[in-house]
Amino acid sequence: MKILVVGANGTLGSAVRNELASDHEVISAGRSEGDVKVDITSVESIKAMYQKVGKIDAVICAAGNAYFGPLNELTPENNEVAVQSKLKGQINLVLLGLDYVNDRGSFTLTTGIIMDDPIIGGISSAMAGGAVRAFVQAAAIELPRSIRINNVSPNVLEESMDSYGPFFRGFEPVPAARAAKAFRKSVEGAQTGQTYTVY
Amino acid sequence: MKILVVGANGTLGSAVRNELASDHEVISAGRSEGDVKVDITSVESIKAMYQKVGKIDAVICAAGNAYFGPLNELTPENNEVAVQSKLKGQINLVLLGLDYVNDRGSFTLTTGIIMDDPIIGGISSAMAGGAVRAFVQAAAIELPRSIRINNVSPNVLEESMDSYGPFFRGFEPVPAARAAKAFRKSVEGAQTGQTYTVY
Repeated sequence: MKILVVGANGTLGSAVRNELASDHEVISAGRSEGDVKVDITSVESIKAMYQKVGKIDAVICAAGNAYFGPLNELTPENNEVAVQSKLKGQINLVLLGLDYVNDRGSFTLTTGIIMDDPIIGGISSAMAGGAVRAFVQAAAIELPRSIRINNVSPNVLEESMDSYGPFFRGFEPVPAARAAKAFRKSVEGAQTGQTYTVY
Repeated sequence: MKILVVGANGTLGSAVRNELASDHEVISAGRSEGDVKVDITSVESIKAMYQKVGKIDAVICAAGNAYFGPLNELTPENNEVAVQSKLKGQINLVLLGLDYVNDRGSFTLTTGIIMDDPIIGGISSAMAGGAVRAFVQAAAIELPRSIRINNVSPNVLEESMDSYGPFFRGFEPVPAARAAKAFRKSVEGAQTGQTYTVY
């Protein structure tokens, strides 16, 4: 399959690429590096990416930023980071990518454990995850041409503990390579509308 | 208690007002009518509302628009209706209202059945509901001064079947008065982080 991985150079995206590269043609997309550049907060940038990439069998998004910080510092303005990126960025990859995905293709988005198991400082990211999960479940019943959609909700990644560890005290980190397997399940399987938790 | 009801003149909001008015001081807020005017898609308008209303014991939001239409007509632009209103509008009522809510007060937001049980045409509204539910669960663990937060997720309302009935074929509509009871439970109870389903 020809698989577009957005956020391919991030911690999770690199692991997804490694998981899939031996069996598939992987096209890497990222903000600053990759086969194609994309800023998922920009509708125009997403459109340009798809025009450059053309027809594909699967789109994976392992990108999406959010402000991390306690509620008393959360404002409409810094909450917007997650709204524009992790939430609308991922959803717009679907809305704008539909015509580029081949019959029986798939979309796989990324959510995260804190939408189920909240942490101090994670409100904005949890919000975006909840939005994406509900979007996936609702879009699944309407996608044409047997196209499927799922989301992967990983626990905090072992490789991210240096930066995110203080937020995730007491959580059991998972290796990115383990989370990557769920993306393979989504791409190569037949399920749709699912949330694959890797907790 | 002094309770601010945003969207107080809508189908759901009117029922919530009726449910609470005999026991509480209800302040009605709405886009075009009410004790105070507010456009929840505007941060400035929300701030002005709170400045006018002052200290309160509870904030209820029964407002929030979303585009209804099939996936092949859903665009980043019309998806923005739900992002600005049902999603960010409700969340910003919390972020900007925190300092106005008295100790042991509460916020109660509105989601909806289609975040659990999707319908054709409801993707955008489901997305917003999922975002609000996850926000509520995450905010609940951080709210100061024993302030609580919940959301009510009603089925389609009997009173809305004329306009929304075609979207909700086979659903069992509930009277708005029944959904309103869940708002009372949230305001007068002691639970937090909950999703009260009225299905």
